[in-house]
This record gives sequence, structure tokens and C-alpha cells, in this order.
Amino acid sequence: MRCMQLQFEEETYPVWIGSDCLDDLVEHLRNIDASTFHLITDETVGRLHAGPLSARLAHVASVHNWVIDDGEAGKSLATVDRIAQAMMRAGADRRSVVIAMGGGVVGNVAGLLAALLFRGIRLVHVPTTLIAMADSVASLKQAVNLPQGKNLIGCFYTPTAVLIDVAFLETLPAVQVRSGMCEIIKNALIISGDNLTLIQNRLRPDAQYDRSTLLAIVEAGLMAKQKVMVRDKRERSDAIVFEYGHTVGHAIELASGGRITHGEAVGLGMIAAAEIAFATGGLPDSVRDLHYHLLQRNGVTLERASEVALPAVMALVQSDNKRGYVRAAPHQVPMILLQDLGKPRLENGWPLTLIDSSLVAEVLDKHLFNPARPAAHEMAVALCR
Amino acid sequence: MRCMQLQFEEETYPVWIGSDCLDDLVEHLRNIDASTFHLITDETVGRLHAGPLSARLAHVASVHNWVIDDGEAGKSLATVDRIAQAMMRAGADRRSVVIAMGGGVVGNVAGLLAALLFRGIRLVHVPTTLIAMADSVASLKQAVNLPQGKNLIGCFYTPTAVLIDVAFLETLPAVQVRSGMCEIIKNALIISGDNLTLIQNRLRPDAQYDRSTLLAIVEAGLMAKQKVMVRDKRERSDAIVFEYGHTVGHAIELASGGRITHGEAVGLGMIAAAEIAFATGGLPDSVRDLHYHLLQRNGVTLERASEVALPAVMALVQSDNKRGYVRAAPHQVPMILLQDLGKPRLENGWPLTLIDSSLVAEVLDKHLFNPARPAAHEMAVALCR
Repeated sequence: MRCMQLQFEEETYPVWIGSDCLDDLVEHLRNIDASTFHLITDETVGRLHAGPLSARLAHVASVHNWVIDDGEAGKSLATVDRIAQAMMRAGADRRSVVIAMGGGVVGNVAGLLAALLFRGIRLVHVPTTLIAMADSVASLKQAVNLPQGKNLIGCFYTPTAVLIDVAFLETLPAVQVRSGMCEIIKNALIISGDNLTLIQNRLRPDAQYDRSTLLAIVEAGLMAKQKVMVRDKRERSDAIVFEYGHTVGHAIELASGGRITHGEAVGLGMIAAAEIAFATGGLPDSVRDLHYHLLQRNGVTLERASEVALPAVMALVQSDNKRGYVRAAPHQVPMILLQDLGKPRLENGWPLTLIDSSLVAEVLDKHLFNPARPAAHEMAVALCR
Repeated sequence: MRCMQLQFEEETYPVWIGSDCLDDLVEHLRNIDASTFHLITDETVGRLHAGPLSARLAHVASVHNWVIDDGEAGKSLATVDRIAQAMMRAGADRRSVVIAMGGGVVGNVAGLLAALLFRGIRLVHVPTTLIAMADSVASLKQAVNLPQGKNLIGCFYTPTAVLIDVAFLETLPAVQVRSGMCEIIKNALIISGDNLTLIQNRLRPDAQYDRSTLLAIVEAGLMAKQKVMVRDKRERSDAIVFEYGHTVGHAIELASGGRITHGEAVGLGMIAAAEIAFATGGLPDSVRDLHYHLLQRNGVTLERASEVALPAVMALVQSDNKRGYVRAAPHQVPMILLQDLGKPRLENGWPLTLIDSSLVAEVLDKHLFNPARPAAHEMAVALCR
């Protein structure tokens, strides 16, 4: 396994990355010297991957398996409470280690649990989705949902290590691989243009990747994130650029009731952001076109937007939580826009631009909901369907 | 109001201390620039003190009042969840401020809530008990209970400010004042002998103190705590000395089912620790006798121990959680002992001494449960009853 040392201000932790390396992964866990392991998964990952890891780990220390509900439903403080109590009944102590095996939800629930039990026990991430491997694990944020909104309850906590085996991705549905790839594309567009060539050349509309490609893409994703987090570990200032494409994207995801994946929705949101940056001057048309090209190479079609209604999307756009960062009038939408590859547009030194909501609606209508006159880049997307 | 700036490693916050200073307290809260205030109390404090503060604060920003159950019952993750949801429904945002008005339980629940909501919003402590004013607020620990044990779920979080009005203590029952005073005596004994004269001269068995005495005692308590926390903000190494008297004390408190207050129990636990330190050599008899004298001046009688059974106490002593810090055989009890005033006895540089549990039982039996032959200092205690 290769090792990347992530550094977020004064916080640092190793990410070990390999392919088909379950035994190496167990060796790393052995070196952590745990009294007991508490392996946390969701139902799907538990069924697919927990067995082989648990069986090997049982030779190192006793292993307890805890399962949370699939999806956002289990991402609550009640789940943290339930598992904490179960762990205590099973004899957890300060030297126990929490292993978060799964995607972002498992990572968050297990992360908050590890942060809070005994005011912090060791946490090891074993991500099994592309987005978790290349993005979520490179963060100190741990959070769960309230009925009033996502990720409202949480804290910052540094994992002991991240152990990545890209072989886990072979059981991941193509739609999820595409979703993760959209976030990796996003980070490359907004942060590090230099990763774009690597990603662009390797993207496949069918989302079928070999392991060496996955290794390279995961590493590129982590490096893009590191570049910003090194000076903003709490993701409160510079790291707001990770929200690129999310203003419209998150609205589309919510309006679709989850039928459109987070990544796809962010992909569509980036098209909106690129068209707005182009329309308001500043973004070269080549960079705008690159957005369409990357989405197309990743197998995401613009047509997906037609599954949701524009008024519903606009209502959600107008209650976007980036509103808390700047003073915006009710008709203004704070958005992250590009001025060039890897260069967010700044206003007063801050990467948020206030856009009139009527312009947002116009762009969404024209470029996502009614692309009536296919331009060259839209033709390209059409050709790839 | 006077200001003490507490410094715990790189974390720092101001403690404003005054007497009958509700208007000044509101001015400090005004300067914090909150969008809304969320005042958290328990039933008793809510009834006694929340009204006047809320009424004044309402001129600054809107105030929401949230009440948790009295005592340890409300100190749970479920309470944090419930109030977080109520706060969100009431429109809380990142600029809202949590005010923890009450004793240690309220401070802990509100502290964890403030630490977790939006991954941290501002927290102001307005302590209303002596122990909270002089001890609890000088800590970054925030925690709630699990059914399996106290304070098992929590994190470290730095308050924005602490605002102390000693006038709140006038509604505190004498038994609670005595309990708080025991912890202040403990910190003086183990950390800063120089505060002892001040405390010793002012202690009153009837627990009736004037405001200037309370101000002086609260400041002395905070200064003793600061002295250790400045180099151990997480209370993981040096700060273990705060647990002086707690090995036996906590066992007595638990065995009494709460009839003996925490402070009184710690007071009795310090007598046990002093007798053990004396018996195993090293502690001057003058310091041992001072333990009895301070307890007597504080109106705590040794007879209280007879309300619990020695075997029950010993069973609890043997499962004390300081066992996790050192390797101890089953018949050994890790204890914090004094070698002199303000000087913990060290073993391998660590302030824990392994004591044979038979010696602990013998000392408890002889000096707490069956003080058959009253010695000079026991006579003094008897005289003051």
C-alpha cells in the first residue's frame, strides 16, 4: 500500500492506498494496538464486505459488528446514542478502535461516535465508495442530520488513519461511481487544474475502471482536497470552494427526492455555475465547454434535470445555506463561480458572487430544463448518449 | 465585574465575576452580538433565576428558554437531541448563542449542545452553584451520561465567556454550598497550598457567607484550577490530581444513592486518602489533621459515612475508572495521595500510587466507619457538631 500523509493545518493523518490488499489493511489495524475493534457498517456494506475483514481482524483482537440503516435515515444522534450504548455493553474502553467501513454516511456516524465516546477514541476509516475514498475521508468534519436539515449536529475530529482498498469499488453500482467522479471533477475544476488532464483522459461514460486508474483518480482527488484543507482544516473559509456546483446541485438533488444522485446533481449544478460565470463575463468559453465535456465523459446526461421542476429547484436555491456567509438581498443568490480553471472568482477576497435569482432561473431554464437549440457542446453530449 | 482570563494551553476565555450584577452581565451578553439567545436551565434554576435575565436580554435580541430535567436524569444525548431540534424549529442559526444557566449538569448539557450544533456555536456559562462557579466552568470538558456510566459521551469545547454573579448563591441550599466548598478545599489541598489560609479563615460550618467572601473563594478556586489546566487543557495527565479524594468519595456517593452529596463524599474520600498517605509514610501528621480541620470548618461530619455500607463502598472502589491510567493488579487501587500540601505523591512521574485494597478497607473501617477511639482531631469534629 502507498501512503499519503494528509496535513490540515496542525492536524495530520496517514492515508494508506492499495488494491486488493485486505491483508495489508489488517496489518495496519494490528499496529494500532486496539483493545477491541468496533466495525461499523450499513446493511449493504455489512453484507458485502464486513465478513472477510472481521474474520481476519478476529486474529488481532475481539471484533464487534454494528450496523446502521442504509442511507440518510440512520444518520442521526439517536443512532450514535444506540451504538454507543451497545459498544459500552460489549465492553468498549478508551483503547477500543472504531472502524468506519462504508460510504459517507457510515463515516460520519462512526466519526461522530468515535469523537464523542470517552470524549474521543481512535477512528479508522475504511471507505468503500469512490466519493468516500477520494473526498469524504479527507475531512475532519463529523456530522449527523436533524429533521430540520442535514449535517446540523457534529464536530471536528481527526481520524487515526484511513485505509483504502480500491477493490471494494468493484461492488459499487455504476451510478454511484459516476456520482463520486462528479465530485472529483468538481475539485479538479475549482482547485487544481493540473489534475484535470489525468482525470479527463481516464473518464469513461460506462464507469468501468481498472484498479490502477482508480488508484490514480483517488490519489488525485485527495491531493486536490489537501491543497485547500492544509490552510483551512475546519472548512470555514477557503474550503467553501468545495461547495462549487452545490447551490443549484443540492437543490436539484433535494427536488428529485434523491432519484438524482448527489454527484450527478452537483454535475448539473456546475453546468449552471459555468453558464452563469460565462454570462456574467469572465469565464472563458473553453472552460465552460470543458464542463460539458467532462460531464459527458463521465456519462451524466443533461436530460436528468427534466426529472425535476424548475420552480421547486428555484425555491430551494433561494434558501441555500451559503446565505449565512454573506449579506445577500432576498433576490440574490450567493454562488461560487470560476474565473478560470482552478481559480474561483473573488468578491472582496471571498469566493462568493451575488447573482440575481432571475438570472439563475433564466440559465437553468435555458441550459438545463429547455436546451432548445443544441449548441456544439450539447451536440457532443447528445452524441454520447 | 472583575475579569480573570483563563488560559488552558492555547485556549483562553474570560471569566467576569461580580456580585448582584445582572445588568452588567446583560451588557457582556450584548457585546457578544448574538442573532438569538437560547437560555438553558433546569426546572429549579428556571423558576428562580431565568425570568429576570430573560426579561433584560429580550431588549438585546430574542430569547428562547429551554428547560432540562433537574439532576442527572436529563444529562443524556436524548436531551441534547431534543433541545437541538427545538432550537432549530425556533430559528437558531450560526450566530445564535447558548447560555448555560445553572449547575454542572446544565453546563454540561448546554456545553455539548453548543459544541455540536452547526459544529459549534457560541457558549456562555452563567453558573448558579458554587461548584459550577469555582470549578466546573474552568474546564473544556463537555459530557453527558450513558446508562452504562457518567460522562461517557462528550467532547472538548471552549466557551466564549463565563459570567458569574455570586448573588445567585443566595438561593442555594447550605448543603450544596458545603458540597461546592469541599471541591474548593480539595483543589487547594492538592494544588495550591497558598490559597488554604484564605479558605481556612473564612470557612463557616453554617455555610452562610457574605458576598465578598464568596467572591474571594470563587476566585481562589478558579486560580487553583487554572494552575494545572494551563499545561493540560484536556485533563488527561497533570489534571488527574483534580480527582483527589474521588476514588473513595465517588464510591461513597454512589453507594449512598445520592443522599450524600458529591462534595461531602469527596470530603470523606480525602480523609481516607490522607489517612492512607499517613499510614504508608510520607504525609506529615499536621497535613492529615488539616484535612479533618477543614472538613469540620465546612460543617461536614464524619458520621455521614455510616449511612453507607463498607462492602458496597469497597466494591465500587475496586472498579474505579483511574484503573485505566496505570497497570494495577486486581487487589490494587490506584489512588492520588499527597506527600505535602499542594504536592501529590508521584510514582514514575505519575500522581497515582497503587494501594493494597485491604489497606483501603482497613482505613475506611477505622477512620470513617468505626472511629472507635476518637483522636484529638476527631474530638474537634465532634465538638463542632
